[in-house]
Amino acid sequence: MQFLSDNAAPVHPRVWEAMRAADAADTPYDTDALSRELDARFTALFGRECTAMLVATGTAANCLALATMVQPHGGVVCHREAHIEMDECGAPGFYLHGAKLLLAEGAGAKLTADGIAKVLAGITRGVHQVPAQAISITQASEYGLCYRAEELAAIRAIANDHSLGLHMDGARFANAAAFLGGSASEAAGDVDALSFGFVKNGGMGAEAIVFFDTEAAELARWRRKRAGHLQSKGRFLAAQVLAMLEDDLWLDNARAANAAAQIVADGAGDRLVHPAEINESFVRMDAGERAALRDQGFAFYDWDETCVRLVTHWASDHDDAHKLARAIAAL
Amino acid sequence: MQFLSDNAAPVHPRVWEAMRAADAADTPYDTDALSRELDARFTALFGRECTAMLVATGTAANCLALATMVQPHGGVVCHREAHIEMDECGAPGFYLHGAKLLLAEGAGAKLTADGIAKVLAGITRGVHQVPAQAISITQASEYGLCYRAEELAAIRAIANDHSLGLHMDGARFANAAAFLGGSASEAAGDVDALSFGFVKNGGMGAEAIVFFDTEAAELARWRRKRAGHLQSKGRFLAAQVLAMLEDDLWLDNARAANAAAQIVADGAGDRLVHPAEINESFVRMDAGERAALRDQGFAFYDWDETCVRLVTHWASDHDDAHKLARAIAAL
Amino acid sequence: MQFLSDNAAPVHPRVWEAMRAADAADTPYDTDALSRELDARFTALFGRECTAMLVATGTAANCLALATMVQPHGGVVCHREAHIEMDECGAPGFYLHGAKLLLAEGAGAKLTADGIAKVLAGITRGVHQVPAQAISITQASEYGLCYRAEELAAIRAIANDHSLGLHMDGARFANAAAFLGGSASEAAGDVDALSFGFVKNGGMGAEAIVFFDTEAAELARWRRKRAGHLQSKGRFLAAQVLAMLEDDLWLDNARAANAAAQIVADGAGDRLVHPAEINESFVRMDAGERAALRDQGFAFYDWDETCVRLVTHWASDHDDAHKLARAIAAL
Amino acid sequence: MQFLSDNAAPVHPRVWEAMRAADAADTPYDTDALSRELDARFTALFGRECTAMLVATGTAANCLALATMVQPHGGVVCHREAHIEMDECGAPGFYLHGAKLLLAEGAGAKLTADGIAKVLAGITRGVHQVPAQAISITQASEYGLCYRAEELAAIRAIANDHSLGLHMDGARFANAAAFLGGSASEAAGDVDALSFGFVKNGGMGAEAIVFFDTEAAELARWRRKRAGHLQSKGRFLAAQVLAMLEDDLWLDNARAANAAAQIVADGAGDRLVHPAEINESFVRMDAGERAALRDQGFAFYDWDETCVRLVTHWASDHDDAHKLARAIAAL
Repeated sequence: MQFLSDNAAPVHPRVWEAMRAADAADTPYDTDALSRELDARFTALFGRECTAMLVATGTAANCLALATMVQPHGGVVCHREAHIEMDECGAPGFYLHGAKLLLAEGAGAKLTADGIAKVLAGITRGVHQVPAQAISITQASEYGLCYRAEELAAIRAIANDHSLGLHMDGARFANAAAFLGGSASEAAGDVDALSFGFVKNGGMGAEAIVFFDTEAAELARWRRKRAGHLQSKGRFLAAQVLAMLEDDLWLDNARAANAAAQIVADGAGDRLVHPAEINESFVRMDAGERAALRDQGFAFYDWDETCVRLVTHWASDHDDAHKLARAIAAL
Repeated sequence: MQFLSDNAAPVHPRVWEAMRAADAADTPYDTDALSRELDARFTALFGRECTAMLVATGTAANCLALATMVQPHGGVVCHREAHIEMDECGAPGFYLHGAKLLLAEGAGAKLTADGIAKVLAGITRGVHQVPAQAISITQASEYGLCYRAEELAAIRAIANDHSLGLHMDGARFANAAAFLGGSASEAAGDVDALSFGFVKNGGMGAEAIVFFDTEAAELARWRRKRAGHLQSKGRFLAAQVLAMLEDDLWLDNARAANAAAQIVADGAGDRLVHPAEINESFVRMDAGERAALRDQGFAFYDWDETCVRLVTHWASDHDDAHKLARAIAAL
Repeated sequence: MQFLSDNAAPVHPRVWEAMRAADAADTPYDTDALSRELDARFTALFGRECTAMLVATGTAANCLALATMVQPHGGVVCHREAHIEMDECGAPGFYLHGAKLLLAEGAGAKLTADGIAKVLAGITRGVHQVPAQAISITQASEYGLCYRAEELAAIRAIANDHSLGLHMDGARFANAAAFLGGSASEAAGDVDALSFGFVKNGGMGAEAIVFFDTEAAELARWRRKRAGHLQSKGRFLAAQVLAMLEDDLWLDNARAANAAAQIVADGAGDRLVHPAEINESFVRMDAGERAALRDQGFAFYDWDETCVRLVTHWASDHDDAHKLARAIAAL
Repeated sequence: MQFLSDNAAPVHPRVWEAMRAADAADTPYDTDALSRELDARFTALFGRECTAMLVATGTAANCLALATMVQPHGGVVCHREAHIEMDECGAPGFYLHGAKLLLAEGAGAKLTADGIAKVLAGITRGVHQVPAQAISITQASEYGLCYRAEELAAIRAIANDHSLGLHMDGARFANAAAFLGGSASEAAGDVDALSFGFVKNGGMGAEAIVFFDTEAAELARWRRKRAGHLQSKGRFLAAQVLAMLEDDLWLDNARAANAAAQIVADGAGDRLVHPAEINESFVRMDAGERAALRDQGFAFYDWDETCVRLVTHWASDHDDAHKLARAIAAL
């Protein structure tokens, strides 16, 4: 019984269908009919004009978005435990040509206006220090916590005060939006660019970068090509994303994943390190307990010495989730 | 009737099948069962030990391969009309951190030992000039011409003499191998790394980088992750490539494409700018003639002022090819 | 008798004096009194507001200037034989993070509006090609030829038409200005940034980047620091440059160098490959003739198989120049 | 009375003399007689074969040294308060093409084998994380503390265990060597490359990178040129450094600076935040006390809210130092 990663989930049947339907030859490099539909669909979803671009991974999405906001000598304020800092093998250093991540603190891997302000306050020595040029937040955070509208507004305000770009890493944006009530627009707040993840949520190999700034999108087109992320058969990526947007499949899938996680979290009770807002539970557990669960056939990730991470996804079996919940409760 | 690009071709049914079969959840980031099969399959194909890695595009494959051979202050000898020079938006400059393409001449966009030697002979002023560190050749070339075994050997020899890495861009490697007699090993010669293309030949979004040098492959793993080209659901890429290798589908598809092109080329006769060795015909044509063909429903790419490019692919309709051949002959 | 390079020349006595006078402790990193004088002095010289920044080498000056105009995915139109292309070990690739030099033709290593237009006309395929973002010209060119006011205006016009930045490499700007009549402003035309050389003309280790665009200058400050080119004892660089500007020493030195070259050129007569406008003569000479001159004690640089380069400088002995002229005439 | 920075100090008379003596024309780009002496002189000083290269700044020295040890996707373990992390505007990100600084802890800004081991222990997730490839330590540290021989040996051991390069930032290496007993070799330990500072210690604009690894030195020559740090009149940099090495001037100057600092430190007594081992004293002081000292004519740098930094140099007036000592004691 897999609770290892939503990256391992299968592809949703409606995504498969859409891909098959895209098989007939069409023109390459995003000049096809499906790719040309993307902007309108995301504009409708967010209720404000935007430009979307697809890439194969969240790492590429994050970095291409940030590259429109940050000069090679600049810096990005992000959380000390953000994915771009911890898990992308220095990809921001590559895509941003040596720009620096400026690490901020915040409970549950969420940035706060205060945490950001503290980092900015330390930048006082002119050309001897890297200037901040953007903020990157993760919705939901590495610990599965969601930014509320007022938190997003406070961060936007500090970004404005310091003329910083604002990027959102939304690898689990759908799960966050589902938790926050289902509005993509509210979950995104007023960011300049959003990495909107689909791969963990029923897609196969397509993530969207949604730009709310036309000029930045224009710039990103060149950078995407230059990074080898403009695919010749882009129609198959577009098909995936359009299927996910159709009839709110993205939201339905996220709700299913969150619901499965809720079952697990209920079993974990006091062991939860963070409230289980989305499809992840971080559960305090010692080595013996972990072994006991694994003996019962549960697979999961050792987050650190104090806790494990249990992840569900759109296709997670709710019976398995109940079994896991009971197994934890019984520890 | 499409003769625009093999990039627009559909995905082969057996590739679809293999992808569907890979749907069941497996572990992410190339730790899945299919991805772990790749090295053995390519080793069997080439008859010498190799390591394979998949990425979404040929641009990424080319650049990640070259990045294992060239330092940021180094240079890559390539043809003045090579894809990496002309069509990748400066991707080598990005992936190689500013390294330089050192442009050589050669008929039909093929490098020759002489053309390479001439470039190397011009590098004499020590640290004031970029030193050559690799050679990149394209099999088949931008004009669809294939390197014969003895040509490859001569280039390998000059690479050895100057301690240069040797890379092969094989976006249409399958078509070249089909033309040269069907041996992957002979078509690749003794290169250090090969970008083995599948997308134009029945795949969807997977190209292989085949490393014949284990250390280089190790290095490339980090660089691939850092470039956002390690996909979490890599099993779907592996499925594509394994299906293409199974029972020589890659070769069958290439043969079909080449055969269709041969039909077109026969119609073109004296108009051919280069012999049609693979699935491309470069055909001399003036503006009026192009318009005449387009009026008859043929779509194709204006290569330059003197000629058009007519491309076939694995699924090209041979009747359409005959129609095109007749239409050209009738011009 | 040295005609090898103006890079080998001694430092002018007035420059030495100014450096000694700067010895008393002052605050570091260009906050000293001398460094703070630079902008005003260059503004007075050019008759329009400008910002100046000093670095140790022309390579750093060229690249930091270009880095304010060109994105990492962009291109710089320059002459096929420009110093930035031929002699800087790929420094533009480093400072511009992989941006590309787009090579244009032109007699005597001078760009023309036509040559530039031809390069620009070849950029038609959207994101598949590197977009031009700047033009770099060299005053005087690698062959010692000077751009006239109308030539500069024509290049400015094409830059404007295509929204390109315009940079001037002025390693021998002083010699060009001396030849053109002595006006710094006329010799610079309407460029956005000028690398104004002093090292070859009586300085020791200070070159100026003169920005006619305040915002670009601001950006360059960060990039200069990041490149390790902000010197803590910048007052010694400022002292050199201020001494060179004082009472037009820069112009007097350049005139002396040009005059010495004129003597040599007169002796070379028909052998001159290019008119000797500044302090360099390119003189046709076979191997035997070169040996004969060297036997007589003349040192110089073999430019290529057809000609040698004879360079004079501010302190060149005019008697030596006459000897060389006679020796060439006697060949 | 200046206690602001040793960067503001005058140039030593013997350095001036040597520079003047280098004025006669010689060949450019480090082919001159003085530059060619450097390797032998440093080899004699360190008692083991080494290759030296000069650049204008410590930032360039540090980064060029590290660039020989670290790949663009790699990391450098350094102290959280190291100069390369805090004060160089992201220069390592530029020179190392996006490589990452991996921050370690340690009292007084000194790394310890334990602190390094802790960072290395956190690197466990393969290609998802930046691999450590080098360690950079600062002799003396940002707080003026010196590594003893056994501390250097322990760090070398951990570097060997993990196949990491070892770099020493020696902006105040002379002061450290003076404190540690006067042996350059002992103060450097067994590092692979040392940035040996001269500018703060009586030089003008020359810092040495000393490579104890020939291959690394060869590589660095290209990178130096590419960074615009190969000066055409390198003989003036060589003259400075040779004069500093002659008759141990570097050591005498450092001793004088350290002695002046000792006077100040004696006055500071309990207020010292760190023992004053070299030419810097970090002295606890509130805002009122700082103002009081400034009213008496003392200039210095506010390190942070708890303390000020008082720096002496080779030419510091010992009477001024006594005055400052008394003034602090009287607070």
